[in-house]
Amino acid sequence: MGALHAGHGRLIEVARRDSPSVAVSIFVNPSQFNQSEDYLRYPRPLETDLAFCAARGVDVVFAPPVEEMYPRPQLAWVDVTRIADHMEGHFRPGHFRGVATVVLKLLQIVQPERAYFGEKDAQQLAVVRRMVKDLNLPVEVMGVETVREPDGLALSSRNQHLSAEERAIAPRIYAALRDAAERIAEGETSAEAVRHRALAAFEEAPRMRVEYLEIADAEEMQPVESITGAVRVAAAVWVGQTRLIDNVRCVARGSTGP
Amino acid sequence: MGALHAGHGRLIEVARRDSPSVAVSIFVNPSQFNQSEDYLRYPRPLETDLAFCAARGVDVVFAPPVEEMYPRPQLAWVDVTRIADHMEGHFRPGHFRGVATVVLKLLQIVQPERAYFGEKDAQQLAVVRRMVKDLNLPVEVMGVETVREPDGLALSSRNQHLSAEERAIAPRIYAALRDAAERIAEGETSAEAVRHRALAAFEEAPRMRVEYLEIADAEEMQPVESITGAVRVAAAVWVGQTRLIDNVRCVARGSTGP
Repeated sequence: MGALHAGHGRLIEVARRDSPSVAVSIFVNPSQFNQSEDYLRYPRPLETDLAFCAARGVDVVFAPPVEEMYPRPQLAWVDVTRIADHMEGHFRPGHFRGVATVVLKLLQIVQPERAYFGEKDAQQLAVVRRMVKDLNLPVEVMGVETVREPDGLALSSRNQHLSAEERAIAPRIYAALRDAAERIAEGETSAEAVRHRALAAFEEAPRMRVEYLEIADAEEMQPVESITGAVRVAAAVWVGQTRLIDNVRCVARGSTGP
Repeated sequence: MGALHAGHGRLIEVARRDSPSVAVSIFVNPSQFNQSEDYLRYPRPLETDLAFCAARGVDVVFAPPVEEMYPRPQLAWVDVTRIADHMEGHFRPGHFRGVATVVLKLLQIVQPERAYFGEKDAQQLAVVRRMVKDLNLPVEVMGVETVREPDGLALSSRNQHLSAEERAIAPRIYAALRDAAERIAEGETSAEAVRHRALAAFEEAPRMRVEYLEIADAEEMQPVESITGAVRVAAAVWVGQTRLIDNVRCVARGSTGP
């Protein structure tokens, strides 16, 4: 989606290590936005992005105009049921249909051997992984660890919308997720207990509003009650007018996990 | 779907004329059947089909077991909205979702340059054409004219379920469609008038029940009231316990059509 930052830089770096040539797609996809203001204000610094890619040895940038990706009313859509039902899928209706469809389109056009996605969007990554498997797409999906600011805030193009005050409190999101992961690693198996404690961390922050904070199984992203195996603790939090998401992966104590 | 007949033979013949090598997929796809009896009784003469392909110079036959195409619960599905809403889509809920999904899977696995489909399944062809366009699939879709018995009955794997008596009256379907097309070519522009006359042809046939008979625009398969441009006259008719479909393409008088 462009507005490239060090998180994208890490995707490029990992891809270059794996592959003789690297392509980057830059496309702010209208069909995955469920709020038109969010789509309209999404940053589009194309010249800066192109320089960013050039400096990192990217071989091809594919940055089509909207009319090239959607030259007629789009009738064909890809849905990944179940995985897309909760969390982001619940609060952003139609979002994952738009994501899955545009990712499939980009994969068909670019035809890469491997495609790299950040783990910050863990549910998106799970949707793409399952789409690729279920639809036999000839591509290997590579998840790349989230890049963070020194204070823990996950890099996101949306961070630039934060005021100084909001930026100062935004790291609480990752802190709460980390704390939750530690509780789980120490043996807590009740999702409700973990959630309760994590939500309390936001209570004294009047500019923050938690949209969801869930513990979900790592593969199908279904919220769990009892924590066993590998899970993601994932949250969406409004900080002022900006919605941020983040997640951490963790494994229940005593579980070998997948 | 196998149970190969001269209609499939024509697809192979046309493909061989275009291409140095030809692959045939044979797969009775459970996800496109909305009635399990229909799925269970669908013929599967694999040995005969393989001999049929060998005799016609087919280079590759891909005939996977169900567990290879669906090794886990299928969560990712392709929908082609609008085109799939009426006629077959209306009377066979979920059918085109199953068709679009399995065709996408087969195209990803086989990766052909061109893919051949019979015009007998005109709505299916329209769904596949739009899916390929909207999802940027790197394949050319080729429609091949319906092959018919000397008396006009469209070849279909389901014809073998007809009793002698049913087989004798089945050609009325094509006769009625042909008659409708002639009316349109002569200048009739009212879909209702064309339908009324066509349906009358089935009234004296007690073993035949028309499920639908529609005049639809040729590209998006939307039933029309006023006939202009290129249309398909399409019908689904039960003959005893067997459901047959057929269609003819025609162009309104004075229209150049697409």
